Amino acid sequence: MSTFKSVRGMRDFMPDEAKAMRFIEAKTRKIAELYGYGEIITPVVESYELLAAKAGEEVRLRMYAFKDLGERMVALRPEFTPSVARLVATTLRNEPRPFRLFCVGSLYRYDEPQQGRYREFWQSNFELMGSNKPEADAEIIMLTNSLMEAVGLKKYALKVGHVGVLRGIFNQEKLNEKATNQVMQLMDKKEYDDALQMVKEAGASKKCLETLQKLVGLKGDRVFDIAEKMGETVEGYEQSVAAVENLMAILRLVSESECKVNMRLDAGFARGLEYYTGIILEIYIPELDIAIGGGGRYDKLIELFGGESTPAVGIAHGIERIMLAMQKQNVPLQTEEKKNVMVVPTKDELKGEALKIAQMLRDANVAVEVEVMGRKIAKALEDANRRKVDYAVIVGERELKEDAVMLRDLLKREQNVVKIAKMVEKIKGSPKIVGT
Amino acid sequence: MSTFKSVRGMRDFMPDEAKAMRFIEAKTRKIAELYGYGEIITPVVESYELLAAKAGEEVRLRMYAFKDLGERMVALRPEFTPSVARLVATTLRNEPRPFRLFCVGSLYRYDEPQQGRYREFWQSNFELMGSNKPEADAEIIMLTNSLMEAVGLKKYALKVGHVGVLRGIFNQEKLNEKATNQVMQLMDKKEYDDALQMVKEAGASKKCLETLQKLVGLKGDRVFDIAEKMGETVEGYEQSVAAVENLMAILRLVSESECKVNMRLDAGFARGLEYYTGIILEIYIPELDIAIGGGGRYDKLIELFGGESTPAVGIAHGIERIMLAMQKQNVPLQTEEKKNVMVVPTKDELKGEALKIAQMLRDANVAVEVEVMGRKIAKALEDANRRKVDYAVIVGERELKEDAVMLRDLLKREQNVVKIAKMVEKIKGSPKIVGT
Repeated sequence: MSTFKSVRGMRDFMPDEAKAMRFIEAKTRKIAELYGYGEIITPVVESYELLAAKAGEEVRLRMYAFKDLGERMVALRPEFTPSVARLVATTLRNEPRPFRLFCVGSLYRYDEPQQGRYREFWQSNFELMGSNKPEADAEIIMLTNSLMEAVGLKKYALKVGHVGVLRGIFNQEKLNEKATNQVMQLMDKKEYDDALQMVKEAGASKKCLETLQKLVGLKGDRVFDIAEKMGETVEGYEQSVAAVENLMAILRLVSESECKVNMRLDAGFARGLEYYTGIILEIYIPELDIAIGGGGRYDKLIELFGGESTPAVGIAHGIERIMLAMQKQNVPLQTEEKKNVMVVPTKDELKGEALKIAQMLRDANVAVEVEVMGRKIAKALEDANRRKVDYAVIVGERELKEDAVMLRDLLKREQNVVKIAKMVEKIKGSPKIVGT
Repeated sequence: MSTFKSVRGMRDFMPDEAKAMRFIEAKTRKIAELYGYGEIITPVVESYELLAAKAGEEVRLRMYAFKDLGERMVALRPEFTPSVARLVATTLRNEPRPFRLFCVGSLYRYDEPQQGRYREFWQSNFELMGSNKPEADAEIIMLTNSLMEAVGLKKYALKVGHVGVLRGIFNQEKLNEKATNQVMQLMDKKEYDDALQMVKEAGASKKCLETLQKLVGLKGDRVFDIAEKMGETVEGYEQSVAAVENLMAILRLVSESECKVNMRLDAGFARGLEYYTGIILEIYIPELDIAIGGGGRYDKLIELFGGESTPAVGIAHGIERIMLAMQKQNVPLQTEEKKNVMVVPTKDELKGEALKIAQMLRDANVAVEVEVMGRKIAKALEDANRRKVDYAVIVGERELKEDAVMLRDLLKREQNVVKIAKMVEKIKGSPKIVGT
């Protein structure tokens, strides 16, 4: 046994898993196209300075950071947003808004490995930049719903919150930014008692504490009712009232678009990343307690990267987590069932003919492997059976003299001499029987 | 202007470039399917030990190597083969041969950046493992030809050599492995005089020097003639004679398969990597002096990684280099020309309707962006024109009352009121005029 292993937390995808990954990737690319998002491919290795600039401590301390051979401090990207922000602040600086940008690829964080969490993980990432309007937020919700539908996930819920509601209260109560972020992080972890305690210690008013207490209890899938109650609860906090109005406008647009997304509003919902400023989103399925995607609005971020002020909203979907969700919900991959064929020559002198016939089949869009192990026919067919190959094409001298081959249906265990000119038709004509 | 930059040698792909990359990637995946190669996805981060084990010094010293937060010595993969070898020696250890494995992804080497050479670069990689037969080598050549045809590259040549011919001579002359590898590296760089000098200093016979001298001059596209001359030239070197026979068998199979590949045999051709044992291959186009792909047979490698003895042959294709080759030869991307549409509401109250209509179009497989900037119609249409959008769907109150919208052909500058039920048909019906 080899002593070489993969690195802890890093994962191999074998062919069936890779197929599922690429299926989801293809669907995200299709959705990107339908919504007008252009794909960009940015490097895995970025400057440490860029990646650390706006990362919260939790992310920053878990980056794969190192010096390259030119003594540059670099790191493996832990998220896509800094790279996208870099492009918006540089290459795209003078291009007219809006930008609809899409990326898909691997990200790296030194987290403790567990179910659905690896140190190398894959995401698709959508960002709509340049608009501060509620229709932009609504689009991100619709797009997420389209993606979930496209991969076949039906039972899922979109958890919705609005960072502006909480931030509005803290601003008016004059909590400093650090305390605000700490409180938000505690709320993200649902440690509400500790959060309230911290707010209290920071000198907030009694009204503030009561308001927060009420907000934390407001959640559920009757989103308009809850949003209305949120509005009543934050009365007197001007920015929070505006935030609830923004939230309401987004919810109304999603509803009017007739998007069938199952939303769950949670007034006490906060997300760890410090850069959110408006709506925040997370995708859940009942069978998993980790989010399979998340995002929100971040209107200040691009400026912080040195770009022009550019309001933005975005969402990332975890590809392995969608894979896991599909497994949990027994969602089949909707891939084309294709016939596959093994071509076997009956003797060494016919190997060239076998290769030629294989190529004819491939030209007709049939997947073919040629016997390359020098095995006897019976052995080769045994192997083909084991690997669920549909047909064997046996290339023998006698048949070749009549421009024919022996076509063996490996499922039915029948074989017939077939003219080479009719071979493709015979193979492609019969519908594939799945699951027998 | 932002001070954040991408890291030297690392590259961004903007939407048009990303489209070309993904087109090539999709074609390699299609070829993999047609030839029965299963995709595997292995991590970018592997143990340094694994990646350094069989890498030549040139690669080893240019790896992105570092300690992770758990003090493990790791590196970013500079090639795919060690990861594939790791899987064959572990996860796949007990699976019956042959393995046909395919990967595509990014690799990392700290090389001096230049045209077609980046520090992060993309390859597709095909490996056929378990067979030492010439039909396996022929398959790799046919597959490469299929890929070149699939992306649309017609003018290309496959440079072919055979490491076994040279190694056979050095073995019989009792050159040690280190000297052999050094000579091969000099030959790889076409520094033939230095190579011969080194062979001479190592105490080789006069016959050996004469044989090498003659071999180095044998090259061209009449591959059978040249192979025959190679056979005559190496007479007396038993292993070399066998190597020429192997080469001849491969060439014969490729010819019999009627594969139209343009091959160029070069008896003095060597490749830098030390692990090759048989045929070696490189893909060139006349417009570029760097190879756009390369590979060969490596029968000893899997054992060296602790796996069972597994003969293997493989090839890697540089995705950016294929992109560059397509540009140089003006090969167009064969992508589906799709209509795209911008949906614009005439007033704020109709934003929800606009979102709904956008979704109807997407459900009919039309790419749609919705106006999200709150611009006046004229401004939005100006932007749509600039970005070569085909149609605008203007959602106005008067038309909506009649279940209709205003459909504007942005190319023809014509607009008509169209029933919503007929909208998709109107948009998809007219063939897209390209290049006007």
